[in-house]
Amino acid sequence: MPEFSPGLEGVVAARTAVSEVDGANGRLIYRGGYLIEDLFPVVSFEEAAFLLWNGELPNKAQLDSLCRQMSTARPLKETARGALMSMDPQTDLMDILRTVVSAQGATKLLTRPTLEEAIALTAVFPTIVAAAYRRREGKEIVEPRSDLAHAANLLWMMEGKDPPHERVRFLESYLVLLADHGLNASTFAARVIASTGSDLTSCVVGAIGALKGPAHGGATLAARKMLDEIGSAENAEKWLRDAHARHERFSGFGHRLYRTYDPRARILREMAKSAAPELHRTAARTEEVALQILHDSHPERPNATNVDFWASVVLTGAGIPKELFTCLFATSRVAGWTAHVLESLADLRIIRPASVWTGPEPGKKPAPLGSR
Amino acid sequence: MPEFSPGLEGVVAARTAVSEVDGANGRLIYRGGYLIEDLFPVVSFEEAAFLLWNGELPNKAQLDSLCRQMSTARPLKETARGALMSMDPQTDLMDILRTVVSAQGATKLLTRPTLEEAIALTAVFPTIVAAAYRRREGKEIVEPRSDLAHAANLLWMMEGKDPPHERVRFLESYLVLLADHGLNASTFAARVIASTGSDLTSCVVGAIGALKGPAHGGATLAARKMLDEIGSAENAEKWLRDAHARHERFSGFGHRLYRTYDPRARILREMAKSAAPELHRTAARTEEVALQILHDSHPERPNATNVDFWASVVLTGAGIPKELFTCLFATSRVAGWTAHVLESLADLRIIRPASVWTGPEPGKKPAPLGSR
Repeated sequence: MPEFSPGLEGVVAARTAVSEVDGANGRLIYRGGYLIEDLFPVVSFEEAAFLLWNGELPNKAQLDSLCRQMSTARPLKETARGALMSMDPQTDLMDILRTVVSAQGATKLLTRPTLEEAIALTAVFPTIVAAAYRRREGKEIVEPRSDLAHAANLLWMMEGKDPPHERVRFLESYLVLLADHGLNASTFAARVIASTGSDLTSCVVGAIGALKGPAHGGATLAARKMLDEIGSAENAEKWLRDAHARHERFSGFGHRLYRTYDPRARILREMAKSAAPELHRTAARTEEVALQILHDSHPERPNATNVDFWASVVLTGAGIPKELFTCLFATSRVAGWTAHVLESLADLRIIRPASVWTGPEPGKKPAPLGSR
Repeated sequence: MPEFSPGLEGVVAARTAVSEVDGANGRLIYRGGYLIEDLFPVVSFEEAAFLLWNGELPNKAQLDSLCRQMSTARPLKETARGALMSMDPQTDLMDILRTVVSAQGATKLLTRPTLEEAIALTAVFPTIVAAAYRRREGKEIVEPRSDLAHAANLLWMMEGKDPPHERVRFLESYLVLLADHGLNASTFAARVIASTGSDLTSCVVGAIGALKGPAHGGATLAARKMLDEIGSAENAEKWLRDAHARHERFSGFGHRLYRTYDPRARILREMAKSAAPELHRTAARTEEVALQILHDSHPERPNATNVDFWASVVLTGAGIPKELFTCLFATSRVAGWTAHVLESLADLRIIRPASVWTGPEPGKKPAPLGSR
């Protein structure tokens, strides 16, 4: 029996050409061999998704075709709208997303995942997220517009007015940068579900549930909440030293794989200067002090800033309320989830690991109920 | 980098005291050290669930308290009922279950999984399954009754009349036998989702999606469909030899872990004689011929009958329509899913395995859209 690696750290669970996190060298490679920093700011979210799904960037005709397909798939089906409208508007937005995606993707017969479904599911996320957000705010739902691209249409549906070009750019950059990241926990959940021969919606719904956790997609919100508490660059040192003295973890620092600065965090840090100058000032000072404290207490650990820290600043600059951060993460990562599931179909084998029994030796007999 | 084990076969992914599949010796051990054959037919589903959750069998007062808690948690919340009623009645019943459980368990704030939630989710599965089934049949939904135990109430809600004792016993036996089975794919999916700090409903919803696959929970239906096609004991040999000649796999045979007869299959095989005598005759002859064919073509493989084969016969005898088989599996296994998630909380570490990159060396630069 091989040794137990908690969290499956270092255990190879898949061969993949969708993306690669080269943590030792601080590189994120997207399908086809593109370093993430080379794709930015060249490609749109639609182009990045096409790349993850198909292995190459689209030409103009392919991109137009994808945009048409996505735009057609934006509206909610009646069943999904029904599920949405019956939920308490104050429900956790990730719970609404999980439920409404499940309803939107429900079918009469079990089908093998297809690229068409991947496109349709990816296309509908902004519709659900924006509608759930507006209901929460007590506002009328705004229907999708087919003349807008993915990111712009999301802001349109959230706000009901034409979004400024700059904010679309911030949002689009975030969506491109977060679209895939190797065998992260939510992607792995999707692949485990796919491995039984299940349908694509089941994979995506499971992945939404995994992303929700604070150790995964929930971390962006946690980083922003920490910055809110810190409040200003001037308060950063005192706040962090107090928190450290209370043995609290700093949100937005550390990652299992990166041993150097996360390339996505580097891009977002630079973008944050123009996206949210005031919050950037607080965040930059927070990062400086936090890294110093972390280094002083654990010089052996690579405590680099992770993507959540700077994503929280850029999303703020894009005009995304923090309650939506995890949903926005899902809106980006669904491209990667579906690409991984489609890739896994080529060599489907049920993912069924072993476990080590820590219970007593068997042979105990149940006493009759009356004598327990 | 360790070697890649497809499907994580033999890779230890958890330490657990909830259950252990000792495949080499054909033993299934439930929490506390009980062999599955010793629990049968002594304990009810409620007692088995209590055992999986708490580590010991309940005394009378504890069991009464659990039954009251479960009975209180049976009704659908308004939001879940809304989701159910807005779905096309002909939707795959597992898709309905996935969506309605997601709605039923939706909350305003992310909460750490609790035993109370585990009990409530387990209690509501029969309500959803029966309601979805009756809608599919064009019948009025039957509300749960608080004077009936779990299995009896499920048949009541499906049929709207007092279920015969014998059929309750068949169903209850099935529910006890299938309630947990080590790190199977759906349970593992639940533990992956839990590992990010997500909520219990997200774990259960992901597990439903994984169970749906034909390589997992969908196999019981496949076994029954095969028996339907075979039609009679007399036709078994011809049907199986023809199918084998076409290189078709026999449903209900083979399991990754068992190297000898699955102890659950043995119990169900015996029970099938009285549960469904006619189908038992067909199944017994089918098993005999199938094992012979499989042995002749691959004498080195342990091709024992798996639980799905005989479960399909016993569920038929319990009066469960085959379209509900996978939902019934979920109705049983949710006890195990939730027990595993609760156990995992004691030492939560994000499950984030490694992958092997099969794509090209990085460094490719994206061409501008116009020149692709």
